[in-house]
Amino acid sequence: MDFKNADILSTEQFDRASLEHLFEVALKMEPFAKKEKKGDLMNGKILASLFYEPSTRTRFSFETAMKRLGGETISATEIASSSIFKGETLADTAKVVEKFADVIAIRHPESGSAQVFADNASIPVLNAGDGPNQHPSQSLLDMYTIKKECGKIDGLTIAMVGDLKYGRTVHSLSLLLRHYDVKIVLVSPDELKMPKEYLEKFDEKGLAYEEILDLGEAAKKSDVIYMTRVQKERFTDLNEYEKLKNAFVMSRGLIEEANKKAIIMHPLPRIGEISLDMDDFAGSAYFRQVENGVAVRMAMISLVLGKA
Amino acid sequence: MDFKNADILSTEQFDRASLEHLFEVALKMEPFAKKEKKGDLMNGKILASLFYEPSTRTRFSFETAMKRLGGETISATEIASSSIFKGETLADTAKVVEKFADVIAIRHPESGSAQVFADNASIPVLNAGDGPNQHPSQSLLDMYTIKKECGKIDGLTIAMVGDLKYGRTVHSLSLLLRHYDVKIVLVSPDELKMPKEYLEKFDEKGLAYEEILDLGEAAKKSDVIYMTRVQKERFTDLNEYEKLKNAFVMSRGLIEEANKKAIIMHPLPRIGEISLDMDDFAGSAYFRQVENGVAVRMAMISLVLGKA
Amino acid sequence: MDFKNADILSTEQFDRASLEHLFEVALKMEPFAKKEKKGDLMNGKILASLFYEPSTRTRFSFETAMKRLGGETISATEIASSSIFKGETLADTAKVVEKFADVIAIRHPESGSAQVFADNASIPVLNAGDGPNQHPSQSLLDMYTIKKECGKIDGLTIAMVGDLKYGRTVHSLSLLLRHYDVKIVLVSPDELKMPKEYLEKFDEKGLAYEEILDLGEAAKKSDVIYMTRVQKERFTDLNEYEKLKNAFVMSRGLIEEANKKAIIMHPLPRIGEISLDMDDFAGSAYFRQVENGVAVRMAMISLVLGKA
Repeated sequence: MDFKNADILSTEQFDRASLEHLFEVALKMEPFAKKEKKGDLMNGKILASLFYEPSTRTRFSFETAMKRLGGETISATEIASSSIFKGETLADTAKVVEKFADVIAIRHPESGSAQVFADNASIPVLNAGDGPNQHPSQSLLDMYTIKKECGKIDGLTIAMVGDLKYGRTVHSLSLLLRHYDVKIVLVSPDELKMPKEYLEKFDEKGLAYEEILDLGEAAKKSDVIYMTRVQKERFTDLNEYEKLKNAFVMSRGLIEEANKKAIIMHPLPRIGEISLDMDDFAGSAYFRQVENGVAVRMAMISLVLGKA
Repeated sequence: MDFKNADILSTEQFDRASLEHLFEVALKMEPFAKKEKKGDLMNGKILASLFYEPSTRTRFSFETAMKRLGGETISATEIASSSIFKGETLADTAKVVEKFADVIAIRHPESGSAQVFADNASIPVLNAGDGPNQHPSQSLLDMYTIKKECGKIDGLTIAMVGDLKYGRTVHSLSLLLRHYDVKIVLVSPDELKMPKEYLEKFDEKGLAYEEILDLGEAAKKSDVIYMTRVQKERFTDLNEYEKLKNAFVMSRGLIEEANKKAIIMHPLPRIGEISLDMDDFAGSAYFRQVENGVAVRMAMISLVLGKA
Repeated sequence: MDFKNADILSTEQFDRASLEHLFEVALKMEPFAKKEKKGDLMNGKILASLFYEPSTRTRFSFETAMKRLGGETISATEIASSSIFKGETLADTAKVVEKFADVIAIRHPESGSAQVFADNASIPVLNAGDGPNQHPSQSLLDMYTIKKECGKIDGLTIAMVGDLKYGRTVHSLSLLLRHYDVKIVLVSPDELKMPKEYLEKFDEKGLAYEEILDLGEAAKKSDVIYMTRVQKERFTDLNEYEKLKNAFVMSRGLIEEANKKAIIMHPLPRIGEISLDMDDFAGSAYFRQVENGVAVRMAMISLVLGKA
């Protein structure tokens, strides 16, 4: 993948080499992301941050990345109702915004919206989440976090826990994990199992995976445990939900007994699926993911602008 | 017009000399607007961008202008409900905001609101649209675009198309065109003809104008065709609307036959009045207007702050 | 009080020495707040400005303070509905935002919210108003204004006028005035008298106070008159409100007769409790308070980041 002037719309654009290249650049960005140094790589550059639906965490991460590298931002939030969109096609909006900015981060509730933007803007477009479809910067920071926490990715056993049927983050993560030699452990209620198409993708690459219902048992054999939320709304049978909901909660008691060396991740926000007593567990990496996110987004921005 | 410390509230403030001066400054701003150079003219200066109604395009344009010249912005959007306004008069808000910023861009749904702001703030106020009244930065960038696209304004024939009765942009543009030796072509449905007061203003200056119903015929004799939207809501008789709506659409077929050298302009957003096949027509200048808008707003800001 | 890395959550944290120290730093900040000089003290630093309820004046003041010192801001307004909060605890949000910013200003409708943020964020938190509880930056700028306007605080007689029962600003101001040798004059309708606990606090410090119903009489004996609004909604008997509402309005006629040297203050927005003819009265300091607010917030930010 040649990053210069590229759009980053989907994790499917990445192969192992481009992932590794991005990780290297992200590592160089860490002193800026960690507030140790002030960057100037983006001096004179503007990021347009267009959030057609709210996601303050992702927006702050992109804007922080840009500003700590010396760049500027112009920002629109919840702009579904605004005049930039008033009857205007996304295609026209893209042709307008390219006149203002050097790079665009777009969050939009509809699948494919980032692609439309990229097709019409002559400047790089970074997909900051297009509905149920893709959220590549999240998956890239997840992979970067795994590598940083464990020192490698090959050889690891990665558990994904919770709603594996609808969860965008675990799907995207699965696509990226395929580029490494990992074992996959899938932990979910029956109603929310990983869709077959993803299992087939593991098979294609010869990656071993197993489905385990018990979180403790899964934790025992996993180096990394990626938690996600099990939403009540997903269940047709609420008795089933009540019965299962606690089965997918990570607690200090559980992890201390199962695997004291495990790395615990979560895309945030957590609702109750990681108990508060986990916060000072050494392997709890979910807030470190946020910091890694800034470095990874710095890398994305720098790479597409040819400044890495 | 002495720009230094002036407010820019209305196109009526401009004579030919002040327009030409603004165009000269805008031309010098182009390398910054076009992202070729990083400016520092506005270092240490703050633009307050107060948008009491949404208009992301105009807001982004002002903010981009300020930031690419090295300045900063503080920004409030849809602040009708906010505490800066909670029961507070516009006059008091002006006296507050002048303590924070060096220059103010205000967008407000009520006619005269920008004037109230200007009367009470000791710093320059730029009207970014006060309801049906004025939107001078739009008209200035329109004039600048005509000059850039055609190399001159004197001697041109300018067609204005669509809703000439209610359209704020064509009214403001008319007021500025009076300072040049141009011919005017007016193309609109009967219900939406240019009001008499503007025709009288053309007469006062001895400018020739004619009303033509057929867009193709108008295009044949025009150097510049300024398109605007014909809104359904303006018609009392919807049959009349249905009959007419396609008569004021610019398409590739029409312009190729009528006038291959015409310049096509539009204040955006376009809804359907310029067909998509126009986008790669050489004379289609409506997205270039956006870029010119940044240069023109850079000129406005710099002039009123005495930094041009 | 050691400011470095401290949170500023309440006026109760301040003693006389820390107030005086803050005032000294604010005085040094004035050239930057008054737009005479461009600062660089905050170069490379980011303020996260989190406004869970709108307060554009306070937000602009913090953001202006940061930007005029060369720093940057990331800003979220009305974020109650946003994903940073979607089901997430304030504690988790604090742990996320600390990864992006160097210092946080938070405005939130609930008492104690700023404390929760401070308990969970490893970076300094500045309370920009937590509901009915505290709004320390307002009280600090009020004290600073008194000192600037009068050259001293000891020995002054300070009148507080209006809603003394529910008014957060007069309560906070009272707590800070206790550190000086002042006389207090309390002017309010019976329904809205200063709560006993504050009177007791005056007693503890041996500060003389008196309650006066007549504003003119109060003005005669006061150096500073701090006006606040009397809200209709506070009255159970609307006849009582109608009878009283004009008794607590400061007008030019009243002050010219009572005390031409008085300093008139108000936290803004004023609704009608200071008449417009007061605006060019020499002692009217309510818009100067806004300017002082920028200098005081510059001092707060610089002190907690150890850069003062």
